[in-house]
Amino acid sequence: MTQRIVILGGGFAGMFTARELRRRLGKTVEIEVINDKNYFVFQPLLPEVAAGAIGAINAVTPLRFLLRGIFVRKAKVDSVDFDAKTVTVFQGVQRRPTVVPYDHLVIALGQGSDLSRTPGLADHALTMKTLEDARRLRGHVIERLEHAEITELPEVKRGALTFCVIGAGFSGIETVGEMKELIDRSLKYYPNIKPSEVRVVVLEFAERILGEMPDRLATYAADKLASRGVEVMLGTGVSSATGTQLVTTTGEVIDTRTIVATIGNAPSPVVLTMDVPLEHGKVVVARDFQVQGREAVWSLGDCALIPMKDGASERHDFAPPTAQFAVREARQLAANIEAQIKGRPTKPFAYKSQGALASLGAGRGIAEVWGMTFTGLFAWLVWRAYYLMFLPGVWTRVAVLFNWTKDLLSARSVVQIDTAPRTGARHLHYRAGDRIYESGNRADGFYTILSGKVEITRTDAGTGKGYTRVIGAGAHFGERLLLGETKRAATVRAVEDTQVLVLDREEFEKLSDGFGAFRQYFDDYIEDTFGNGTPHAAE
Amino acid sequence: MTQRIVILGGGFAGMFTARELRRRLGKTVEIEVINDKNYFVFQPLLPEVAAGAIGAINAVTPLRFLLRGIFVRKAKVDSVDFDAKTVTVFQGVQRRPTVVPYDHLVIALGQGSDLSRTPGLADHALTMKTLEDARRLRGHVIERLEHAEITELPEVKRGALTFCVIGAGFSGIETVGEMKELIDRSLKYYPNIKPSEVRVVVLEFAERILGEMPDRLATYAADKLASRGVEVMLGTGVSSATGTQLVTTTGEVIDTRTIVATIGNAPSPVVLTMDVPLEHGKVVVARDFQVQGREAVWSLGDCALIPMKDGASERHDFAPPTAQFAVREARQLAANIEAQIKGRPTKPFAYKSQGALASLGAGRGIAEVWGMTFTGLFAWLVWRAYYLMFLPGVWTRVAVLFNWTKDLLSARSVVQIDTAPRTGARHLHYRAGDRIYESGNRADGFYTILSGKVEITRTDAGTGKGYTRVIGAGAHFGERLLLGETKRAATVRAVEDTQVLVLDREEFEKLSDGFGAFRQYFDDYIEDTFGNGTPHAAE
Repeated sequence: MTQRIVILGGGFAGMFTARELRRRLGKTVEIEVINDKNYFVFQPLLPEVAAGAIGAINAVTPLRFLLRGIFVRKAKVDSVDFDAKTVTVFQGVQRRPTVVPYDHLVIALGQGSDLSRTPGLADHALTMKTLEDARRLRGHVIERLEHAEITELPEVKRGALTFCVIGAGFSGIETVGEMKELIDRSLKYYPNIKPSEVRVVVLEFAERILGEMPDRLATYAADKLASRGVEVMLGTGVSSATGTQLVTTTGEVIDTRTIVATIGNAPSPVVLTMDVPLEHGKVVVARDFQVQGREAVWSLGDCALIPMKDGASERHDFAPPTAQFAVREARQLAANIEAQIKGRPTKPFAYKSQGALASLGAGRGIAEVWGMTFTGLFAWLVWRAYYLMFLPGVWTRVAVLFNWTKDLLSARSVVQIDTAPRTGARHLHYRAGDRIYESGNRADGFYTILSGKVEITRTDAGTGKGYTRVIGAGAHFGERLLLGETKRAATVRAVEDTQVLVLDREEFEKLSDGFGAFRQYFDDYIEDTFGNGTPHAAE
Repeated sequence: MTQRIVILGGGFAGMFTARELRRRLGKTVEIEVINDKNYFVFQPLLPEVAAGAIGAINAVTPLRFLLRGIFVRKAKVDSVDFDAKTVTVFQGVQRRPTVVPYDHLVIALGQGSDLSRTPGLADHALTMKTLEDARRLRGHVIERLEHAEITELPEVKRGALTFCVIGAGFSGIETVGEMKELIDRSLKYYPNIKPSEVRVVVLEFAERILGEMPDRLATYAADKLASRGVEVMLGTGVSSATGTQLVTTTGEVIDTRTIVATIGNAPSPVVLTMDVPLEHGKVVVARDFQVQGREAVWSLGDCALIPMKDGASERHDFAPPTAQFAVREARQLAANIEAQIKGRPTKPFAYKSQGALASLGAGRGIAEVWGMTFTGLFAWLVWRAYYLMFLPGVWTRVAVLFNWTKDLLSARSVVQIDTAPRTGARHLHYRAGDRIYESGNRADGFYTILSGKVEITRTDAGTGKGYTRVIGAGAHFGERLLLGETKRAATVRAVEDTQVLVLDREEFEKLSDGFGAFRQYFDDYIEDTFGNGTPHAAE
């Protein structure tokens, strides 16, 4: 009977495993790749997408193009039944579970992101893990420039023109370098912004940047970024974040409206729920990728803890979570699965890194290849040439080459076409003293206090007298928009560090119109609070 | 004192007016353009974006590139005070109103879309007016192919592979032609989909398509589309729509999960609130674009009713809402504003259409130029050449030409990178008999009934006995997910045409966690309904 090999994940690890298996085993096996997106993301190019040097569509390739003859299922993995040897997924509108049987299972689900340990970060920072993240960052940066161009308030302008990146590993350094280039090249279209008003900061908790690279290259990178106006704060992490500020671990408060968190790697949430041995959130595997205690279950890539030697114990004894390693792991894994199917012994994974490349944007880079180090324009060209060749598909390469050439010769477009997704209910953090909204502002949402305290101040238009009250967790404010108020009648300020849930106007109105009990609650509330005409009634 | 000319809207009308004014008046005036997006959309190319023939970024140009020396304000227009001669806008996070003074005001806000007259259409149809619409349509179409590829349910596959376009004017015909090409070219990557399983339909209420074009061309277009497998239903409109079906005015029920509405043009919502004379929702202007009864206020483009002759009364006596006319109107308007500033008389607008072009996709088109008509490949090339020259900016042209060349030589990418925006609360329509969800489905939302009735059926796992109850407007269901239920315990079906408000799981949980009264209501409700252990308790 034909063996079914199911691969969970269509990134570097999963995609190359599938191709290698097809190459080795041909039609003698059924191969299925399950991924939540229908495309493969060429992650090293994400910072270029974030900076607008290439289009989003050039950094991705349809899995169907790369996996001809392999069944591609666009679906979300829900769970695995290791006894029945089935995977349960949700596809389409994702209501009905589909059960997918396997003979061999490969878990290549990569890593997720978890910023919840730092107050405010999950709600106010941007990440750089997916294609959507990269596009959103670009849209966000341009939105800040647009706002800074027209605002008349100095503190708003300062916050809009301060950009913070947290983490100075590869992701952070490439992101900040590309972002700086985007900003620098866009400024000539924003006559009201002076270059000196822009502040770009990288926060790194360790005492040096790019810990994975040799000293000489890290030093070059730091100097180059500094000469381009990027501030590097070493020994500094982020302590908390709001929509308008970042507080560092050294107590400095930075007015900023852009925080990019490249830290916070975490296990894929699906992997965490699987009944497999985990350590540091990664799947424990033997040197040949087999998952301990599970028959015909394998794991590789960022979600697996792959020992590179017997008795591995230190962090550097395990395979690093890079594309370079994922591709070599995939080749060895495919060989091992073939071996197992044919009753032969498997081989342990062994690979020595060939080096590392990083782009600093603006035509400069750093490269370590086969023990030699390069910096500057040459390293940047090596970076581009390497990834160009590595990209799957001739036409993707042609398109990226065209984009790069055009980018060198013409202005970089500042069209802001990727707006942040609208979400009905969001969490927002405020620091003690922050103003949440002020009298006269457009009434755009309904707030509930999750923790902390706020002070509501109303000034009676007639008498000029001010009325103040303080409310805390569990209370709410801003519901007057149900009375048809379009402008706020009071000013609300946080008196402690406060977290709120805000429901935007449209959502609030939909719920009030549609959900009787919700409406009734507010009718009663408003009747109680305003009905008797007390001047300092709730906001 | 320097005159300030404020232009509301950055489309063809507004953008070309600004450029022409700058050309004529140089630095003697201040010109400001206010637009809610920071880019100009080259609308004729939107169907190509929807089909993936070009990238979204190639159909737009930053206003700042096109309007050097002109102040560009990215903001939403709130209102105009004609006595004070100011415009109130919201910019940035859009809380604080900004007041912009003017000496001359140009209203060029275009048209909006209003599908509310047909039940279900506003909630379940896609539109093709903006760049986001075009991207969303592409993502939607590919999502349907992905789902059809893997689903095991015939009725789901049929619905996923049926695509309906409403309206056979320019927009509808170009959209359906391009969409058909995208689908045809993608099918080779979806081995489980046979071309015969795909159904593409255009509904047109009139008795012929392309009413604005000569008979000969409309006939050619209809034949060409038919030969490519597009069904054209004449004399047919849409009566109602749900998430899985469309009902025509002739009573036919079509299983479909893609409805593109190119009808439903409506006045821009902002214009409707302005204190200017309106007729059919358009601003009434004199032949020289001046708004009746308002000093130094002008209007042009899609939002204005511009008479082309004295005593205009029939529809064809007014300027049609096309880009071709908008550009000529802009030139005449700029001349008229200059004239008024310099104390000279204004001139009436006069222009005779030079023709019209439409692409049918797949290398075929129709063209009417200076009275001559063309069809086929030649017309399609004329279409491409014309718009290529019309595009603003050398590099945009180069990029579009590159995209087109690549598109001719390589496969069209099916990466589904534009997902529909998540909204916390949505309205959904169901027809009598539709199943809303069934037992075993993943519990993904909380439902409130706005109108209609539903039947909830639970089968007791132990006894096999079924329990049914019917609830109507104001009642809710699906709240068991608050108890941590991840799979539905009952099946819910609409017994009448029903409209519901759905709050997705994530929103529901955020609100329950954050809003005490909300949570309390459900705690009480669940206590009342489940607490006493009745087997047919609510769902």
